[in-house]
Amino acid sequence: MKADQPRWAVGKRRIPVYRSKLPSAERLLPYLKLIDRNRWYTNRGELVLELERRLSQLFGSRGDIVVTASSGTSAIEGAILASAGRATPERPIALIPAYTFVATAIAAERCGFVPHFVDIDVKGWMAAPERLVDHRMLSRTGLVVPVAPYGRPPPQAAWRDFMHRTGIPVVIDGAAAFEAVIADPARFTGAVPLALSFQATKPFSTGEGGAVVWSDADGLARVVGCLNFGFRRSRDSESPGTNGKMSEYHAAVGLAALDEWATKVAANRTVSGAYRKASAAHGIGDRITSAPDIASNYVLLMAADAAQVADVIRQLSAEDIEYRLWYGLGLHKQTYFSAAAADPLPVTDDLAPRLVALPAFEDLAGEVIERIVGRVARSLVA
Amino acid sequence: MKADQPRWAVGKRRIPVYRSKLPSAERLLPYLKLIDRNRWYTNRGELVLELERRLSQLFGSRGDIVVTASSGTSAIEGAILASAGRATPERPIALIPAYTFVATAIAAERCGFVPHFVDIDVKGWMAAPERLVDHRMLSRTGLVVPVAPYGRPPPQAAWRDFMHRTGIPVVIDGAAAFEAVIADPARFTGAVPLALSFQATKPFSTGEGGAVVWSDADGLARVVGCLNFGFRRSRDSESPGTNGKMSEYHAAVGLAALDEWATKVAANRTVSGAYRKASAAHGIGDRITSAPDIASNYVLLMAADAAQVADVIRQLSAEDIEYRLWYGLGLHKQTYFSAAAADPLPVTDDLAPRLVALPAFEDLAGEVIERIVGRVARSLVA
Repeated sequence: MKADQPRWAVGKRRIPVYRSKLPSAERLLPYLKLIDRNRWYTNRGELVLELERRLSQLFGSRGDIVVTASSGTSAIEGAILASAGRATPERPIALIPAYTFVATAIAAERCGFVPHFVDIDVKGWMAAPERLVDHRMLSRTGLVVPVAPYGRPPPQAAWRDFMHRTGIPVVIDGAAAFEAVIADPARFTGAVPLALSFQATKPFSTGEGGAVVWSDADGLARVVGCLNFGFRRSRDSESPGTNGKMSEYHAAVGLAALDEWATKVAANRTVSGAYRKASAAHGIGDRITSAPDIASNYVLLMAADAAQVADVIRQLSAEDIEYRLWYGLGLHKQTYFSAAAADPLPVTDDLAPRLVALPAFEDLAGEVIERIVGRVARSLVA
Repeated sequence: MKADQPRWAVGKRRIPVYRSKLPSAERLLPYLKLIDRNRWYTNRGELVLELERRLSQLFGSRGDIVVTASSGTSAIEGAILASAGRATPERPIALIPAYTFVATAIAAERCGFVPHFVDIDVKGWMAAPERLVDHRMLSRTGLVVPVAPYGRPPPQAAWRDFMHRTGIPVVIDGAAAFEAVIADPARFTGAVPLALSFQATKPFSTGEGGAVVWSDADGLARVVGCLNFGFRRSRDSESPGTNGKMSEYHAAVGLAALDEWATKVAANRTVSGAYRKASAAHGIGDRITSAPDIASNYVLLMAADAAQVADVIRQLSAEDIEYRLWYGLGLHKQTYFSAAAADPLPVTDDLAPRLVALPAFEDLAGEVIERIVGRVARSLVA
């Protein structure tokens, strides 16, 4: 087999915005041998059940509060189908913040909902339940999908109140919130289902994968069914469903990743610490957001305006340093969703182009971080 | 980790209807080491591209005619989105044979279509294009999903003609058709996209996985985009999409499975040969269908009537031998789809309960096959 160069390695000096590192073959081996012994490869095998147990514990629960999924998108879909079900003609609308990755809207669409984009708050970069409670489309809304942007914790209690007050199901897209859930489980694990992504760009990953975290045992059982064609007691499809099961192979990756989680946390802390130190030294500490305020796979620069963004990009490109707008310019600027209904989106429009992700991954060298921050600082003070 | 006993091992003597065997950890290792070296885990990495190349060759093509997917269901969805797109208000209906696994209808539903079930032919167990060409719902139909039941080859040329004549996109659900495609590629690889499943119960498997086989290069490129959130040239979603990508881990399983494919074919041939020999010896050869007429993971018994089915089940249960109606009693009998629109379905209703799958997997012992056929024969001649 001829090796295609992976994209991040094109040009020796190029610094990618993210570089995944999942458990080595050697670390997977004991789990793969269990798969060999069981001859059971998907459909909630031993490894998937073990991964769900260990995640539940990590999230501070003695009971089972986790169901794994084939992807973060599947996790959102499973949570939607198990709570809101498919959209009805009376309530076809899903309220979704414009500032998020496309998967949020795609998951709602695949459950039959028509996305309607709402704006975010300047402070938390997320939709505010207290403002949506009076939204003009509420009587036709069958679902709300708040987002935990870059893993920032959304207010579980306020969304639970919103759900109780309006009767409209809420599913939190917490794609990048894995570390935030560990740090403060009470804020996440509750009556509102939360979807996590374990995709390769996340600090905890199964390659492709995801999970629903929910304190509602009946709800979780419905998620299991919805992610397996609606099957519950037998091979009779009793509810809407999809195939969103995690395989034993991906569960093996997840179990091995949990084995070395402490090491990864320490490495990521070194990186975010180096960013904090360097940006403070360059006098731009207030412009950089990093872990633990957001997930450790992100370091975000808040530029003042478009001209500054353009200059930062110029500086980074000169050193062959990759950057990214992980959520683009907002869902309403994605070609496919450009005709979707939306509120006025002044905060999203202002914030999205100015929030620039810088490289952040566990083996990013300290001297490279110093170089990145130096370049960025040159733009900000220019 | 405490081992839950996998379900097929409950009771030592129980003979499961299927028992998967995927490549051992040892056979995966060289591919996993490539993943370690690349640090690239999903999003069309080296292993996925290599698997697609090898599958294209296996299907007799010099060019690339295969795009992998995260599951058979995703493969159907990717093919639908890339050909028909999402359903429109003018053409919301998808014509689907009632005799199939639920994934066929679920995939159409998840692309916005409303399933309308049609009947099958007695002979091929599949929907006939020449009859659907005059279907009363055709003017409101935006998609047809014929099925290759148990891997039986559907007529690609006739469906291509149907597509050209009606202008309605057709996607063939060939979930179990992997071996049939290899045996006669010309019959499958053409202008009508075909979706394969590589789920663990299939002879060729990646754990969870699937693929679209299509001779239309532009169409295949659209499938790639649709299975990655509609992204084409950049991170702009240009079309409807989902996350249906195969990971590098599942591709590793697929590559190792291709390495030992010849061995598996030989083992499966021994099993179907033993079934043919035993059923001929017991005078019930005309009641058993096995490979190469269908996929090698199935051996099907056609019972004469409900009473005979009941008796067969009694005989098999007495020996703790598992059986299955893989497609249940038809989609219209699934609780979730029981209210869906449907033509009269006399053939499905007659055939579905009588077509009973017997155990079939590569290491099923010859003496067990003899025992199974003996029991079945006792019912049929009783």
